Amino acid sequence: MTKIIPVKNGTKKEAITKKASVLFKENGFSATSMRAIAEAFGIEASSLYNHINSKKEILQEICFKVANLFTANIIKVEANDLPVIEKLELIIRLHIHMMLQEYESVYISEHEWKHLPEPYLSNFKNQRKSYRKRFADIVKQGIANKELKKIDPYVAVLTILSAVGGIESWQHSKKNIDARSLEENMVTILLQGLQS
Amino acid sequence: MTKIIPVKNGTKKEAITKKASVLFKENGFSATSMRAIAEAFGIEASSLYNHINSKKEILQEICFKVANLFTANIIKVEANDLPVIEKLELIIRLHIHMMLQEYESVYISEHEWKHLPEPYLSNFKNQRKSYRKRFADIVKQGIANKELKKIDPYVAVLTILSAVGGIESWQHSKKNIDARSLEENMVTILLQGLQS
Repeated sequence: MTKIIPVKNGTKKEAITKKASVLFKENGFSATSMRAIAEAFGIEASSLYNHINSKKEILQEICFKVANLFTANIIKVEANDLPVIEKLELIIRLHIHMMLQEYESVYISEHEWKHLPEPYLSNFKNQRKSYRKRFADIVKQGIANKELKKIDPYVAVLTILSAVGGIESWQHSKKNIDARSLEENMVTILLQGLQS
Repeated sequence: MTKIIPVKNGTKKEAITKKASVLFKENGFSATSMRAIAEAFGIEASSLYNHINSKKEILQEICFKVANLFTANIIKVEANDLPVIEKLELIIRLHIHMMLQEYESVYISEHEWKHLPEPYLSNFKNQRKSYRKRFADIVKQGIANKELKKIDPYVAVLTILSAVGGIESWQHSKKNIDARSLEENMVTILLQGLQS
C-alpha cells in the first residue's frame, strides 16, 4: 500500500506560483486564466482554489518575493563595513543573478505590478521607491568619500537598473555570450563607469 | 473670401503619424482604433483613409522613421575620422536625444514592431540586427586600438542600449533631474565604463 505523503501547503503554493510566473511571462497577467494555471499544473481549476485564493494573490506572491529579496539584500549591504564600490558590486551582481536565475519572477514584478490590488499596490510602489532611495544613498556615500566620480545618484541608479534589465533581450536568444561572461562584462562596465 | 491652402499629403500624413504615436504609446497599438486616431485628429474616420491606408501603415511609418534615422547616423559616424570614444559618444547622445525628444516614436519602434506585417517585419528585424552589429564593430575597433578596455562588444552594446532605454522611467515622472543633466551623467557613466 502506498503511504500518502501530505503535501505542505507552502510548498504547493510555491510550485503553483512558479508555474504561474512562466505563464504570466509568456501570455501576460491579464490574458492568463486560473484555468490555464490549473491545466499547466495538471489539476482541476477547483483544486487550485484549495491552495490559492485568486490570480491576484499569485501576482502578489511573485512581486513581494522579488521585492523582499532585494530589500533584504540592500539592508545587509548597508550594514556591511565595505568600500562603497564593493557594496555596489554586491547589489549589481544580485540584480544580474536574479535576471539570470529568476527571470520570469523578476520580469513579472517589473511589468505586471500595476495589476496588484490595494493595499498591496501602494505597498509595492513604496517599497520600490524606498529601495531606489537606499541604492542612491549608497552612491551618495561613494561620491562623498571620493570613491565614485561626481555623478548624479539618481542617474547612476537608473543607468544600473536599466542596463541590468536589458538582460531580458539576452534571455530571448541566449546567444552571443554565456551567462557568466555576460555578468562579468556588465559588472566591469557599470562599476568602472561609476568609479573615480 | 478665405483662400483655401492645399495641405500637402506628406505633411498631413506626418501629423497623423505623430498623433497616432501618442495614442499607441498610451493605449498600445492593438487597443488603438483608426476611429480613435481620427477623433484625436478632429476628422472623420473615413477622411483618415484619404491620407493613410491602414493602422499598420502608420506603425510602419513610425518604426522605419526611427530605424532609418539611427542607421543614417551610424553610417555617418563610421565614415568620420574620429577616435572611437568620440564615435560612441555621438551614437549614445543620439539615442538619448531620441528618448528625450521623440519618446513616443522610439517607444513604439521598441515595443510594437512585432505587429508589423511582412515584408516590413523581416526588414525591420534585419535592420535592427545590422545596426547592433555595426555598433558592436565600432566597439571592436576601440578594443583593437586600445581606446577601450577588453570588454565583450555584444555586452557593451546591450548595456548602452538598455541603459538609454531606461530614460523611459524618467519620462513617466520627469522628476529628480533635468533632461540636460540626465544626458551628461549617463554619457559619463557609459563612456567611462568602456574607456581603458
